[in-house]
Amino acid sequence: MKRLLGLYGLPQSDIVKFLDAARAFKPALLETPPRTFNTLQGKTVVLAFFENSTRTRTSFELAIRRLGGSTLNFTAASSSLQKGETLLDTIANIEAMQVDAFIVRHGDSGAADIVARFTDKVVINAGDGTHEHPTQALLDMFTLRETFGKLSGLRVLILGDILHSRVARSNIFGLRTMGAHVSVCAPPTLLPPFVEALDVTVYHNLSDALQNADAAIVLRLQLEREAAGYIPSIREYNHFFALTDESLSALSEKIFVLHPGPVNREIELSSVVTDRDDSSGKSESLILTQVTNGVAVRMAVLSLLLANSEV
Amino acid sequence: MKRLLGLYGLPQSDIVKFLDAARAFKPALLETPPRTFNTLQGKTVVLAFFENSTRTRTSFELAIRRLGGSTLNFTAASSSLQKGETLLDTIANIEAMQVDAFIVRHGDSGAADIVARFTDKVVINAGDGTHEHPTQALLDMFTLRETFGKLSGLRVLILGDILHSRVARSNIFGLRTMGAHVSVCAPPTLLPPFVEALDVTVYHNLSDALQNADAAIVLRLQLEREAAGYIPSIREYNHFFALTDESLSALSEKIFVLHPGPVNREIELSSVVTDRDDSSGKSESLILTQVTNGVAVRMAVLSLLLANSEV
Amino acid sequence: MKRLLGLYGLPQSDIVKFLDAARAFKPALLETPPRTFNTLQGKTVVLAFFENSTRTRTSFELAIRRLGGSTLNFTAASSSLQKGETLLDTIANIEAMQVDAFIVRHGDSGAADIVARFTDKVVINAGDGTHEHPTQALLDMFTLRETFGKLSGLRVLILGDILHSRVARSNIFGLRTMGAHVSVCAPPTLLPPFVEALDVTVYHNLSDALQNADAAIVLRLQLEREAAGYIPSIREYNHFFALTDESLSALSEKIFVLHPGPVNREIELSSVVTDRDDSSGKSESLILTQVTNGVAVRMAVLSLLLANSEV
Repeated sequence: MKRLLGLYGLPQSDIVKFLDAARAFKPALLETPPRTFNTLQGKTVVLAFFENSTRTRTSFELAIRRLGGSTLNFTAASSSLQKGETLLDTIANIEAMQVDAFIVRHGDSGAADIVARFTDKVVINAGDGTHEHPTQALLDMFTLRETFGKLSGLRVLILGDILHSRVARSNIFGLRTMGAHVSVCAPPTLLPPFVEALDVTVYHNLSDALQNADAAIVLRLQLEREAAGYIPSIREYNHFFALTDESLSALSEKIFVLHPGPVNREIELSSVVTDRDDSSGKSESLILTQVTNGVAVRMAVLSLLLANSEV
Repeated sequence: MKRLLGLYGLPQSDIVKFLDAARAFKPALLETPPRTFNTLQGKTVVLAFFENSTRTRTSFELAIRRLGGSTLNFTAASSSLQKGETLLDTIANIEAMQVDAFIVRHGDSGAADIVARFTDKVVINAGDGTHEHPTQALLDMFTLRETFGKLSGLRVLILGDILHSRVARSNIFGLRTMGAHVSVCAPPTLLPPFVEALDVTVYHNLSDALQNADAAIVLRLQLEREAAGYIPSIREYNHFFALTDESLSALSEKIFVLHPGPVNREIELSSVVTDRDDSSGKSESLILTQVTNGVAVRMAVLSLLLANSEV
Repeated sequence: MKRLLGLYGLPQSDIVKFLDAARAFKPALLETPPRTFNTLQGKTVVLAFFENSTRTRTSFELAIRRLGGSTLNFTAASSSLQKGETLLDTIANIEAMQVDAFIVRHGDSGAADIVARFTDKVVINAGDGTHEHPTQALLDMFTLRETFGKLSGLRVLILGDILHSRVARSNIFGLRTMGAHVSVCAPPTLLPPFVEALDVTVYHNLSDALQNADAAIVLRLQLEREAAGYIPSIREYNHFFALTDESLSALSEKIFVLHPGPVNREIELSSVVTDRDDSSGKSESLILTQVTNGVAVRMAVLSLLLANSEV
């Protein structure tokens, strides 16, 4: 396996391999300072981020370094794409300098796939348009498995703008493969047409959705982009779809809350629900645990794809 | 000690510790190539620069590397702050990836303090609004001590826009603690109200100020920001407050000139005064010596805070 | 030799020294992963890029790392140049932090020269205005020598906007020194006045030019900058001066095609000619080979200038 472009169609055995490898890396990550490895010694990984991102880029960067590899940052703003060069010419040029892998983030769906058809180097999709974001879904699944002990039979709700979310798509594919039950909840305008075809249960009412979930992956309402025009107002969205102590009050059991970040506080999540990471209420936030796990998951993916090795 | 947020209230013994450690690092820095250390081996230091800065960021970056540590650059422009994430959520996310220290530069006074209340990692203030810039003041004091042999009893003039200057504030606190006499000179509109309460002598006339000073820390007139509206014209400011061979001509003894950079040549300093680093005139510039010393001072601060060790 | 500012006046023996050293580095570069060296151990090379550039910056960055050196990235956008600091003050400040070399790219002709007059550190010109780009020309010459076995007597056509091209100038100087025949072809408005004084043959007709060339260095039509106003229309330029299977059809022998990148596909080169890197037609593209060779050439230049050593 030399590429990770999405979780669609990825066999359960491969997902398990990534999750198991990540579990093996996590203790090394929690040492002070984090333990480092020589797995990627001498290798250069290109961070080809054509879309801005702090946490995903930083997470990959730390993962690469802790495996002993070298990173090459490439940002669209300072690149020859500005001079009208095509994506593939840009990739071809960097590849000709003898590098070992491309981590691609791009605003267009399918961008990582196009890169992977072109080069025989390792290619990892770090988010492409509204298509897939496989390492994010793997870290969500890792966090759920770590919390609940297993994914099979787990009831996971994905809440928010499913229509535009690559995180939702990757999670639906991965969680279904692992035997979890997936439900989605959103205003009808923020659901893809025929979403039921993805083998998920659809709720338009948050209260019903929460009653049938062990964990909720809450999506960011992308105020700066897509959400505009799809909902009547943010205030109304917040009233009907946000997780707050009020909307959680009727729950009989505690729900675990995940979010890919960055959180819009008091829009899709109240500050209390965002921050409460103990057992003192009807919800428990796993958001920062996800971030820590992200580094372990990316170390696992890089290690398996670039060196065919685990810890 | 796990943080350096300002020099206000910092005991003399701590300042001496930093200055002594820096003195021990300086010879290593002057070797060709500079000697490197393993003090920060395996540690990751985040350069969280929410305000642009070449020399401070570069100085910290070189200091970290020469101590064997790893840097993580984080710039506001490409970050999720652009998506409305709060400063603390940004810091919390990076911290969850297991890093060891934050160097924070921010346009708002108090930003580093807020970060330090939130995380138990090492936090170093690299300039916050008009509040403090402690490593700059330490390098100024180091340079003065190196030049004069001691700080106690030294007469230091701070010249220029005291009102908006974090460099002035940190130097006043630190120099007073070390027993130096501090005077300030500026147009009344560029002095903070009740500046005498900081235990400094106030001059509105440059000639009087210079007669009573062994060294002058000249501040940058921040043309792009605060100075506008506080002075009638740059030409008038230059006429009354700039250090030039003319304004220095009446001096009986040579004065040493410091400046935090970047210098506005022919505004607060004439080019001749900026560049004259020998004994051929009424002034001697320590400006580039300050820059070299900055790396030694930052190595000292990082080493003491992160590893509780000196050279 | 401590600086490489241009190929004008550089003796043949020095050019040969660079080309031979690059030939020695190339096999190391092609290993998987590329072999690394300790030549620049402990040394810091400043990438002072005041103009954006992906491939040149990346190429230098990889060359420095593979020699064991450390890079310091400096970009104009985030620098104190924004605050009105002069180029020389910026360089003086970074130099005072004890660095070993400056790679300078700047929009103004002569910028690297000014830096070199000021500092006694190693200075390498990575492109200055319309003046010179010596490492680009060396990699072009290296690629031609690798392909044809020698440069002496080789007939090299430079095609396109000679007037604004630092790549053209450096190649003309270097190739003539090495005994190659150089011709240029462009619309009259894109040729410097008195270009014949550079000891080149001038063609205004592409077909004639191609008949007398073994290889063509095709220049980028800088649509975003200079070309505007110098040609009636891009379509007309493409019709008369682009390399396409049509314009190449009359050739009796295959021509080798080079381009400094990024290519404007279907403007100065057809996509077919850009990509055809085998012997199936009237042309063979060396464009990606140039990119690979660029890293070897820069390793050679850095190694000779900074450590006075070859592989």
